[in-house]
Amino acid sequence: MFETPITVTGRVVTDVTTRMTSTGDKVSSFRVACQERRFDKEQQTWVDGDRLYLRVTGWRRLAEGMGALEKGDHVVVSGRMKVREYTTDDGTLRADPEIDARAVGPDLAWHTVIVNRQSWASSEQLALVGPSGQPGSPGEEVADAA
Amino acid sequence: MFETPITVTGRVVTDVTTRMTSTGDKVSSFRVACQERRFDKEQQTWVDGDRLYLRVTGWRRLAEGMGALEKGDHVVVSGRMKVREYTTDDGTLRADPEIDARAVGPDLAWHTVIVNRQSWASSEQLALVGPSGQPGSPGEEVADAA
Amino acid sequence: MFETPITVTGRVVTDVTTRMTSTGDKVSSFRVACQERRFDKEQQTWVDGDRLYLRVTGWRRLAEGMGALEKGDHVVVSGRMKVREYTTDDGTLRADPEIDARAVGPDLAWHTVIVNRQSWASSEQLALVGPSGQPGSPGEEVADAA
Amino acid sequence: MFETPITVTGRVVTDVTTRMTSTGDKVSSFRVACQERRFDKEQQTWVDGDRLYLRVTGWRRLAEGMGALEKGDHVVVSGRMKVREYTTDDGTLRADPEIDARAVGPDLAWHTVIVNRQSWASSEQLALVGPSGQPGSPGEEVADAA
Repeated sequence: MFETPITVTGRVVTDVTTRMTSTGDKVSSFRVACQERRFDKEQQTWVDGDRLYLRVTGWRRLAEGMGALEKGDHVVVSGRMKVREYTTDDGTLRADPEIDARAVGPDLAWHTVIVNRQSWASSEQLALVGPSGQPGSPGEEVADAA
Repeated sequence: MFETPITVTGRVVTDVTTRMTSTGDKVSSFRVACQERRFDKEQQTWVDGDRLYLRVTGWRRLAEGMGALEKGDHVVVSGRMKVREYTTDDGTLRADPEIDARAVGPDLAWHTVIVNRQSWASSEQLALVGPSGQPGSPGEEVADAA
Repeated sequence: MFETPITVTGRVVTDVTTRMTSTGDKVSSFRVACQERRFDKEQQTWVDGDRLYLRVTGWRRLAEGMGALEKGDHVVVSGRMKVREYTTDDGTLRADPEIDARAVGPDLAWHTVIVNRQSWASSEQLALVGPSGQPGSPGEEVADAA
Repeated sequence: MFETPITVTGRVVTDVTTRMTSTGDKVSSFRVACQERRFDKEQQTWVDGDRLYLRVTGWRRLAEGMGALEKGDHVVVSGRMKVREYTTDDGTLRADPEIDARAVGPDLAWHTVIVNRQSWASSEQLALVGPSGQPGSPGEEVADAA
């Protein structure tokens, strides 16, 4: 509640790293870059504007799925904005802006993909826990709404 | 400018349909359902809340890529909120809420995927136009930022 | 959880109406219009694009505060996207896209305002319940972070 | 184009500072804190989660209007996500996450306000330029849509 949602559309600019936490959870992470474009009236063309870099972190099943991504891929990332503030060894305060991702996907505007639909079907426990370890929707069905 | 951004994480609940416009542009479309969950204090468990249905429309290269999706897939969709209002034959005013998608991806929290990285590489013209027919970033490179 | 957040910046285009529900809760509502702008290359100027209309609904304390707004005011509205679907008397299915608002404010880019800071101070019960009837943060303090 | 939109609902945690740029533009700035809340199953109550701090910057007319805000005020802020990265004198890389605000308002869920509707009416030039120095909508009218 009262989270700050954020969605970024951009490119993966680092390798995807995966590690296990001490509690046995898988965590994957990469940096995403979002290149703004703006119309330059003098040049009469679109030019690059600011570039935004953010760290993206995904947990458990999402961490697993993120393993398919590579540096250079175009992605859409949706989650909650987070800024970790910490003090370095020499006493400097640093801020590390990050997206705690709820959903990540390769952007179909830039990539064709093959989707594996049996991905999690065999893992009932995972299905019950949900991708983020939050109570999932195991009984969720696909309505036949047009 | 002054667009209303929206991101939905949910499931595809219809087939994906694709058609050509009179100007020769490809357009794909499906309905997405987003199932809210809320904690019920009496039952001491998470229960279903509202379910949100929205039409998703994607153009050109995105329309092409959306063809990989099927009913039941989990997706993340980001774009601009649009409500088409129109009058039916019998004079009734109807509203049709829709996302004009800028990015769509299969949600890696629910699916493993294989990403095709040569997808658009051979099509220079497409690269110049960009997925939405807007001036793209053909020279965009992937910075080596960690 | 799994709500679909949306923020609209636009103008109030109706009167603000307020009513009491059968459970004694105050509900205020208005329509907001968001006018898109796009650069027209031929005319070499910015022109109007689509206009988005959405109903905005606020509850309890927010419903109270929304009473200060008038038709024509510029506002920023943040909440959860909702589409009520219902069947009219003659059997027509209608969709009513709406923002279930969590926060509404007059836009300071367009209006100067006087802020009443004692607004809810005297109403302990309201403070405990929070603006949306959700558990609030009565003990929330303002950190002295620079 | 390709900006990363973000909306924060929270409290002003610093004084609002205003300065003039070398080009004569007014810029106002403050820090906002967004306190997350989560349901703790063991304690059977809502408890504080992460707290997110972000700098908010507004330009020109918005900078002017932001002058009405004070430390402690509840606000809703909408704009574009920006992370300024820079190197300090001692060679440390620092990131400064910030919202380049397009709209800011006192949150009517927490404050009653008096809205000044003549705010910018007498200033045609400002109206033409728009709050962000972008081409505005001087001829924008309020549709009488219900």
